[in-house]
Amino acid sequence: MSFPVDVVIMAAGKGTRMKSKSPKVLQRLAGRALSAHVIDCATRIEARQAVVITGHGAEQVETALAPLASAQLALNFVRQEPQLGTGHAVQQALPVLADDGITLVLSGDVPLTRPETLQALLQVCAGEHLALLTLEMADPTGYGRIVRNAIGDVQAIVEHKDATDEQHRITEIYSGIMAVPTRLLRGWLARLDNRNAQNEYYLTDIVKFAVADGARVLGHRISDAVQVAGVNSPAQLAELERAYQRRCADELMVAGVRLADPARFDLRGELVCGQDVEIDVNCIFEGRVELGEGVRIGANCVIANATLGAGAVIHPFTHIDGEKAGVSVGAGALIGPFARLRPGAQLGREVHIGNFVEVKNSVMADGSKANHLAYLGDADVGERVNYGAGSITANYDGAYKHRTVIEADVHVGSNCVLVAPVTIGAGGTVGGGSTVTKDTPAGALTVARGKQLSVANWQRPSKQKG
Amino acid sequence: MSFPVDVVIMAAGKGTRMKSKSPKVLQRLAGRALSAHVIDCATRIEARQAVVITGHGAEQVETALAPLASAQLALNFVRQEPQLGTGHAVQQALPVLADDGITLVLSGDVPLTRPETLQALLQVCAGEHLALLTLEMADPTGYGRIVRNAIGDVQAIVEHKDATDEQHRITEIYSGIMAVPTRLLRGWLARLDNRNAQNEYYLTDIVKFAVADGARVLGHRISDAVQVAGVNSPAQLAELERAYQRRCADELMVAGVRLADPARFDLRGELVCGQDVEIDVNCIFEGRVELGEGVRIGANCVIANATLGAGAVIHPFTHIDGEKAGVSVGAGALIGPFARLRPGAQLGREVHIGNFVEVKNSVMADGSKANHLAYLGDADVGERVNYGAGSITANYDGAYKHRTVIEADVHVGSNCVLVAPVTIGAGGTVGGGSTVTKDTPAGALTVARGKQLSVANWQRPSKQKG
Amino acid sequence: MSFPVDVVIMAAGKGTRMKSKSPKVLQRLAGRALSAHVIDCATRIEARQAVVITGHGAEQVETALAPLASAQLALNFVRQEPQLGTGHAVQQALPVLADDGITLVLSGDVPLTRPETLQALLQVCAGEHLALLTLEMADPTGYGRIVRNAIGDVQAIVEHKDATDEQHRITEIYSGIMAVPTRLLRGWLARLDNRNAQNEYYLTDIVKFAVADGARVLGHRISDAVQVAGVNSPAQLAELERAYQRRCADELMVAGVRLADPARFDLRGELVCGQDVEIDVNCIFEGRVELGEGVRIGANCVIANATLGAGAVIHPFTHIDGEKAGVSVGAGALIGPFARLRPGAQLGREVHIGNFVEVKNSVMADGSKANHLAYLGDADVGERVNYGAGSITANYDGAYKHRTVIEADVHVGSNCVLVAPVTIGAGGTVGGGSTVTKDTPAGALTVARGKQLSVANWQRPSKQKG
Repeated sequence: MSFPVDVVIMAAGKGTRMKSKSPKVLQRLAGRALSAHVIDCATRIEARQAVVITGHGAEQVETALAPLASAQLALNFVRQEPQLGTGHAVQQALPVLADDGITLVLSGDVPLTRPETLQALLQVCAGEHLALLTLEMADPTGYGRIVRNAIGDVQAIVEHKDATDEQHRITEIYSGIMAVPTRLLRGWLARLDNRNAQNEYYLTDIVKFAVADGARVLGHRISDAVQVAGVNSPAQLAELERAYQRRCADELMVAGVRLADPARFDLRGELVCGQDVEIDVNCIFEGRVELGEGVRIGANCVIANATLGAGAVIHPFTHIDGEKAGVSVGAGALIGPFARLRPGAQLGREVHIGNFVEVKNSVMADGSKANHLAYLGDADVGERVNYGAGSITANYDGAYKHRTVIEADVHVGSNCVLVAPVTIGAGGTVGGGSTVTKDTPAGALTVARGKQLSVANWQRPSKQKG
Repeated sequence: MSFPVDVVIMAAGKGTRMKSKSPKVLQRLAGRALSAHVIDCATRIEARQAVVITGHGAEQVETALAPLASAQLALNFVRQEPQLGTGHAVQQALPVLADDGITLVLSGDVPLTRPETLQALLQVCAGEHLALLTLEMADPTGYGRIVRNAIGDVQAIVEHKDATDEQHRITEIYSGIMAVPTRLLRGWLARLDNRNAQNEYYLTDIVKFAVADGARVLGHRISDAVQVAGVNSPAQLAELERAYQRRCADELMVAGVRLADPARFDLRGELVCGQDVEIDVNCIFEGRVELGEGVRIGANCVIANATLGAGAVIHPFTHIDGEKAGVSVGAGALIGPFARLRPGAQLGREVHIGNFVEVKNSVMADGSKANHLAYLGDADVGERVNYGAGSITANYDGAYKHRTVIEADVHVGSNCVLVAPVTIGAGGTVGGGSTVTKDTPAGALTVARGKQLSVANWQRPSKQKG
Repeated sequence: MSFPVDVVIMAAGKGTRMKSKSPKVLQRLAGRALSAHVIDCATRIEARQAVVITGHGAEQVETALAPLASAQLALNFVRQEPQLGTGHAVQQALPVLADDGITLVLSGDVPLTRPETLQALLQVCAGEHLALLTLEMADPTGYGRIVRNAIGDVQAIVEHKDATDEQHRITEIYSGIMAVPTRLLRGWLARLDNRNAQNEYYLTDIVKFAVADGARVLGHRISDAVQVAGVNSPAQLAELERAYQRRCADELMVAGVRLADPARFDLRGELVCGQDVEIDVNCIFEGRVELGEGVRIGANCVIANATLGAGAVIHPFTHIDGEKAGVSVGAGALIGPFARLRPGAQLGREVHIGNFVEVKNSVMADGSKANHLAYLGDADVGERVNYGAGSITANYDGAYKHRTVIEADVHVGSNCVLVAPVTIGAGGTVGGGSTVTKDTPAGALTVARGKQLSVANWQRPSKQKG
């Protein structure tokens, strides 16, 4: 009972209430376009194809979504111009739909449908029936009601304004999502007309053709409104954002992650956690982040594209973003507070990065420390190095970046400048306040600073009396 | 049907449960005194005068509120001493109220009444009737009920303890806000007595005089309790603070602003946004802030008194406060994370300010950058300047501040000190670790540092074995 | 009617759904083990002894909790191996329970019971009766119902699955907490059997023995479910964490503290506040923190183990952690934004600590300032010192920490290094960019830097054209 599935994604709307230059289906939830969530869902249910019906901002939408095609999921774009209703939209997709499959109609602005829900709907369709995803609502006022017959099959979708008093008491409504055997869909779509107040072709009209033809129309009912909620305004977008984040938080907690406040947690990507991970309030994770066993993330951290080893402790106010190069933090490392790790920071075991320290495109071997107000960029730092407060690798000559090598067991004093390219030999010491422009010998003390002189009884400027 | 309006603001209470040295009406919501919100509302409905009845902390209240008088709104203060009830309070205002107007009675601790609600109440009053603002409540237990007659006019306000069983079922209560033609008010106030358990003169007693006189008493009913909620405790203050913030968030979202979490957004002033502005979680805006089209504000930013150009990107943990001098950020600028912009920071287009950088009272022309651990104070920076990591303008000689001029295309190395007053000539380079005390020629390389020397086989101190 | 109380704490469970290496009762709420909250409650009700029944992770639990024994509360650990039910658990405690007392049975994973509730339950027990703490629930489905007789005594606890339709309508359930005279408990426990589906010895079976013996069984009913809620999963832990934090926030607000958002406030320890303290959104307090009158804490601060004097203002993004040594901040001090105070920072009155400044184990006398990008470690700073931007005390020679002394009225320039041990004499000035290695005379200007030289027409490297 497994049929090929073609997903049709309605993505032609403008979303006027968003008041945005971007088309609605490109508005972002958890950092990704609404429609990307729908395509992701299509991939998870192993659809063979997604057909995106574009209209408003068609080019923008196509450009943004095209990269989401994959070996698993072919992606086709079909333009609907002009836009004459939902039935008309699906009609545009017919040329690229094959009759051996089930067509699953989704909306590009309904991002939180669960794959399992769609799997269940496809089971109900079974390649033979028209299957409607329906929603049980406490207050269905204004929505089209699902009218069922004695054996529970759907007989009609009745608009609120056309409903009888008895029908108004029905609390099951149509969600906008349906699964229908493509061979049947083709015939029913051909029979649509636009003789109605809006002069539109309504997809829901196929219900009446199905009933007339004696085909079964089945409803698969859910009660979780979030799964079928669409986005028409920034307020609705924010509401679904929070629902999504709460869902992510719940899933992580089921897996054993301890969140200090599930309402103050944001995940915009993928978070993989080992055992006994603790995440304090108000943290944000982006891209792909991996947290080893026993990792503790302090309050107010922003962490993106990074891998943190077991037992690493990230203090509050730490900003990590590996972007493409990634960031890796070794087991037992201590990072922050107020630390920033940038792309290409590769920190070994037990490395310490303290407050107001920035590390970029640098390797720090096990046990090295940069605890205060420092910059390490384009550096290769050996084991057990102590990199002094206020010290800086001057890696940029105005045109090119150069590397600084600090060999093992070096002690760099405070407020030093290491002008790259330069190597500080193993075991060496650089005196505080030195600007080092030439390589230094291993084991040596290197200083580069002026002689200390005092001028006695020196009078500092003082404010003139008014 | 437009009458002059005099607003009377009850502001004599102490607010014991606030446990504060400040009188209750000076407690702050969204950064402003509760009573300032009420005066703001009086201004918006174009009242000609607000009469503030003070009592507890009268001087403090008068001093704090006096600056809110404006060309639009005259402000008078009247002291109520001793405090003998709400009717007695309004009696104190009579000398400054003219008979041609409507008196609108508000409370200085009820900050969130909407101007439109008061406008509607004034329409109901129409210069002829006693108009009461009433509230529909699910559970009115303990409140005075509004008893209406057959044609819907108010007949009485009945205290909970005096109410019949039938009256207990009434869910409409009096809000404490009324509008009354001043000429009628004057007569009714004269008839008040204090023959009651508290020995107080109750303003609500005028309802019975109005009914006795055959004047119409009309109720204008709302159901949004927040609009008439008063503050008596820090918990109520916090509750209204959140209600206010949610209201601000909702208004911004209707205007198209995308908020990652409306429950983690705080506005204490005025926020003007262009199209497609995005604001991440946990941001705070104070004073007047203007965000150009497409501006993106990262998580955990605090932004006050600033104007940000189109497309500017503010990374997380950025603190901007322009105070009186203001801060301006040019189009396409990148600021943060962990940046601080202080009063008088004027940044041009595409300026980059990176982590642990502070800018104060400085102009930076288009395309200049200060990316790491730096201080720019009292500086004039030309176009395309690269200001090195750890570099500092030493602008303070212990008595006076001096300016540093860095001309266009200069490259300042790392950990430099520019001792103001000083000018770095155009196109020049300052070597890393230099302390510059004299002007430098254009196009020159300037260094001021010691010679690098190494002492071979130098032994660092090592811990004595115990 | 005051009896000695022995508390028995059930702490043998594993908590599989926590998916943690730590036993459930060591999971932390507000920074402390769940069971530590229960022991704290036992201390508050002046129990003479707490007997902790351990099982899973017994050694870990015993090691963690043993330090909580005090002069007020003796602590005994009893192991339950194997674990044959709640009755069996309490049986293990019998050898250390004396017959003159009341045994109060609590759960190590139920952290939020209020002492007053237990006091009331003990009053009901009165050394004579079996007293059950019960909960009134809107939806009791699945829970054991409390069946009372005509005079209101408890007759039985009936499991949901065994209940009649009428009993299903009972909304009072058993909470798991009971108080029972130890002399009666001993007899009833002896009569327990494990002839049931789970083959366990159920503590609740003593109810039927009590009824059979004609002893009175009394219910003390509460409706605040949080007080008897247990933790079985990270989601439940997070839920109770928020309930606890809301409780703390409410208590502080009743005491007059103004919280900008009670839902974004975390206290993991003890917070003592003077009058008119204001705390902005998203702050965290840990350990013992004392805030003097009028202290204002900005948004996003983390403050632990510190005492802040009256009128001190802490700007946003400030991180203070005194750990064992403590941090003290004088009256009227201004700290932050982006400041970090570490153990042993002792700041006098009106001290200013600005952005990107770290202070550790240092004394700063009244009126001293370190406003920008600086490090003060192991320093003694006199009054009215101005410590320049970017300056650093080099306190660590690779083996030992040394102290830096900066006497009164010193002005340290920008980007200086003070190499400890060193003393800067009173009233002296250190020129910007100096590395000071020797003591400096009082009143002198000290410089230690290179001569400024310029190389005309110097060509910076430029990118090769591709």
